[in-house]
Amino acid sequence: MDFEEHVIDRKPIYDGAIINVENQTVKLPNGQVSHRDVVHHANAVGILVITSDNKIVLEKQWRAPIAKTTIEIPAGKLDDRDNSYEDAVIRELNEEIRVIPKKVQEITGFYTTAGFSDEYMKLYLATDLTSVNQELPRDAGEFLEIQEKTLPEALDMIKSGEIDDAKTIMAIWYWQLTQR
Amino acid sequence: MDFEEHVIDRKPIYDGAIINVENQTVKLPNGQVSHRDVVHHANAVGILVITSDNKIVLEKQWRAPIAKTTIEIPAGKLDDRDNSYEDAVIRELNEEIRVIPKKVQEITGFYTTAGFSDEYMKLYLATDLTSVNQELPRDAGEFLEIQEKTLPEALDMIKSGEIDDAKTIMAIWYWQLTQR
Repeated sequence: MDFEEHVIDRKPIYDGAIINVENQTVKLPNGQVSHRDVVHHANAVGILVITSDNKIVLEKQWRAPIAKTTIEIPAGKLDDRDNSYEDAVIRELNEEIRVIPKKVQEITGFYTTAGFSDEYMKLYLATDLTSVNQELPRDAGEFLEIQEKTLPEALDMIKSGEIDDAKTIMAIWYWQLTQR
Repeated sequence: MDFEEHVIDRKPIYDGAIINVENQTVKLPNGQVSHRDVVHHANAVGILVITSDNKIVLEKQWRAPIAKTTIEIPAGKLDDRDNSYEDAVIRELNEEIRVIPKKVQEITGFYTTAGFSDEYMKLYLATDLTSVNQELPRDAGEFLEIQEKTLPEALDMIKSGEIDDAKTIMAIWYWQLTQR
């Protein structure tokens, strides 16, 4: 089966701080013409941080799109300072948790919302934590509360809806798979 | 700690077919003023469909934002025809897979990308499948190829990167957790 859509035209809609939006005119496999909204977003990392006493490190923060706080694993966009996804992992953990992981392993990678956005995220496991000597500045306007939870606590927080962030649920289920 | 950001102004940017975009001016907890890009998107369902011979049902389809095909669990936006998330599950499985599940159970719910979008998705398990008598029309421009995979096959597809969609990896890991 031929699936490919050919982009005939791209209309730029918005050039924002963290997203760019365009409306594409595409030719479908059956020859018809249609339109696709596309949100461009930087690639990102999500990090399953496990402490020496086998707890997950989570962050409570405000999320403007849903006008409430969420509890999430540490995560962030790759930026100009990062030569690799691993650089972003190390930088984010310094900025947000003030730790350096001696061990960083890639778990998997995925598109977060391929239906309307191109954001690609790699999920990492970070362990063997030490404190940072030189703290990097946090992003302006970033307010965080750090929490450490056991696996049963984290699973309860998914069940109750207290944890309702996709990558965080993924990371906790992955962690659960490694614990058996 | 006070996390709440107060929205001072909302500037509509784009009113698209599947997304609306606005730029919010917000007052941060420390009193400073900042801006937030927000992509509004309908709520959605993702469905872990398991056949009587214990295979997962997957869909191959073109995804314009990443200009390639993906292999994903059935999913879709809630629309005007749906009075509930369960209605959307039944409708999507009719349209896309041509099955009716006798059993539909909610697994969990989550924001897919709370950093820039308000899309909320509920993940369901659908089993005890029968064929539909009355096929609903597919969305215009929707081209699908259906695949059935065993758990080891699906896990290999995550490992190889052939499956690289967040909700699909989540669903497969959840399935794996129920199999032990």
